[in-house]
Amino acid sequence: MRAVWLEHGRLELRKLHRPRLRNDFALIRPIYAGICNTDLELQRGYYNFVGIPGHEFVGIVLESQDSKLRGRRVVGEINLACRRCDWCARGLERHCPHRSVLGILNHPGCFAEFLTLPNQNLHVVPDEIPSEFAVFTEPLAAAGEILDQVKIPRGAQVAVLGDGKLGLLVGLLLCRRGYEVHHYGRHKAKLAISRRAGAETHLASEKLPRAHYDWVIDATGSPSGLRQAVQMTRPRGTVFLKSTIHDLVEFDAAPVIVNEITLIGSRCGRFPPALRMLKSQQLDVQPLISEYLPLQDAPRAFERAAQKETLKVLLTFPD
Amino acid sequence: MRAVWLEHGRLELRKLHRPRLRNDFALIRPIYAGICNTDLELQRGYYNFVGIPGHEFVGIVLESQDSKLRGRRVVGEINLACRRCDWCARGLERHCPHRSVLGILNHPGCFAEFLTLPNQNLHVVPDEIPSEFAVFTEPLAAAGEILDQVKIPRGAQVAVLGDGKLGLLVGLLLCRRGYEVHHYGRHKAKLAISRRAGAETHLASEKLPRAHYDWVIDATGSPSGLRQAVQMTRPRGTVFLKSTIHDLVEFDAAPVIVNEITLIGSRCGRFPPALRMLKSQQLDVQPLISEYLPLQDAPRAFERAAQKETLKVLLTFPD
Repeated sequence: MRAVWLEHGRLELRKLHRPRLRNDFALIRPIYAGICNTDLELQRGYYNFVGIPGHEFVGIVLESQDSKLRGRRVVGEINLACRRCDWCARGLERHCPHRSVLGILNHPGCFAEFLTLPNQNLHVVPDEIPSEFAVFTEPLAAAGEILDQVKIPRGAQVAVLGDGKLGLLVGLLLCRRGYEVHHYGRHKAKLAISRRAGAETHLASEKLPRAHYDWVIDATGSPSGLRQAVQMTRPRGTVFLKSTIHDLVEFDAAPVIVNEITLIGSRCGRFPPALRMLKSQQLDVQPLISEYLPLQDAPRAFERAAQKETLKVLLTFPD
Repeated sequence: MRAVWLEHGRLELRKLHRPRLRNDFALIRPIYAGICNTDLELQRGYYNFVGIPGHEFVGIVLESQDSKLRGRRVVGEINLACRRCDWCARGLERHCPHRSVLGILNHPGCFAEFLTLPNQNLHVVPDEIPSEFAVFTEPLAAAGEILDQVKIPRGAQVAVLGDGKLGLLVGLLLCRRGYEVHHYGRHKAKLAISRRAGAETHLASEKLPRAHYDWVIDATGSPSGLRQAVQMTRPRGTVFLKSTIHDLVEFDAAPVIVNEITLIGSRCGRFPPALRMLKSQQLDVQPLISEYLPLQDAPRAFERAAQKETLKVLLTFPD
């Protein structure tokens, strides 16, 4: 099969063997796959990644022992858990210490003509959701994780920092859930997407309010964004770290301590609420799609995805 | 009056005017005052402090319009709040944005023959508490703040990092409250205090457990301590930042995000529970007292307090 191969930051297309199907796994042919910032960071050398990247996809199940899955259109949870440890028993497979992670850690990703995942990781996509929207299930679940971690009071004012793909999904989701979203970013065109969903938007180059919000979501992916988020937070307020920052962050602990601020790291989320939201059409991800490019143009797709003005680049696959 | 004067890191004894007594304030003569790490940090130049430092004291009220206070032995809350803003209305005077802070911010401290504080800040010390123990009310309240911020499940295993004054108070308090305390530090003699109270103790130079604790309290006061605390915390666990770190901390955000760890800044706490604990003699602070030195020896007392093996240095005052 053709697949994207990433090795020490070098990205190329390769001919590889189809993955072998293990017991209780499904063989899946992707329809669309999304390039995420984590993929760009793998390309920059994080995790010393060698292999097939990609973890956002919608696809068709070609083979599976589970008849409810065969031939169905699915999305897949990215953490392959042991299903035996305490974490798994508590429904927190996403934190299983023995996990591998699709396209990130010890399991080949979805930027390939075929991929495998455990049957248990798959969710059938309701017919109402077009495939190009279903591919947003994984990042939308990640955005929704915030509301699973902490109960933010109904209708509260929430500041979202960062107008990248994840920041916009967080903004759209919080608007739909009835929060008063103040969205801060660097790109007028991107912020407009959030504004159309009901957010109040501000350019981050303006003078930013200090100690103003009880709830702040940092989706900037940058150390300076995190510092900014802390400065905007009121005493006893909460900052979510909703992005991947791999570098060491220079972090001023004094305001966190003096103002007794809570910082919460936030990663993957549950798929079912994300699928319900996409099915109900309450949340329109269409404006987040910048471009479609075929699998064989993956190197160019990665280049495009890395450009500042680009939002989601979707890879398409041959039938 | 004689007072300690700190200016750009230079500490000296000065003859100064007695503080003028404002309406609703009390004039207090200290009996004992404790040197805290924050005082040592002011001496190192933080906050560009100029004035009389000191915020831990027990003293006698010489003058006050409040007859219930006159002549009584008191301890005092260090935040002088406006009593008019939202924060004050919510009982969170400690976060009043208009506050001054005894011996730290815009209000002369207690390393002097006289100090003033609002009547409302004062708590009469029960007769059962010796003055040399009562002076621990403020740091003990700060230690207890953790349990006010988050409900740690009864009997849970809690790791405490750091065997300085605050770390030991946290360890003693958590032991008394029935938690299973694992105390990590660098000094056998200091850890022995915690061990006698029931903690399991470990030298921080040993190989430390990774991703092991749901609850970790960093009282090391050092950036490396905070990094260590994060590494010892299980996914979805909580780290308290229970010390003053003024430098920029190099902080690895990735494990916090991937493991969805919660970091909580923690500062001052409520006095009444601390006084109750001291009154009930459930908690013995005697082993934390290293030395008594008179006010006029303050420069030497600061030197002593800065030495690694020293715990609390108490200043004494002329009658």
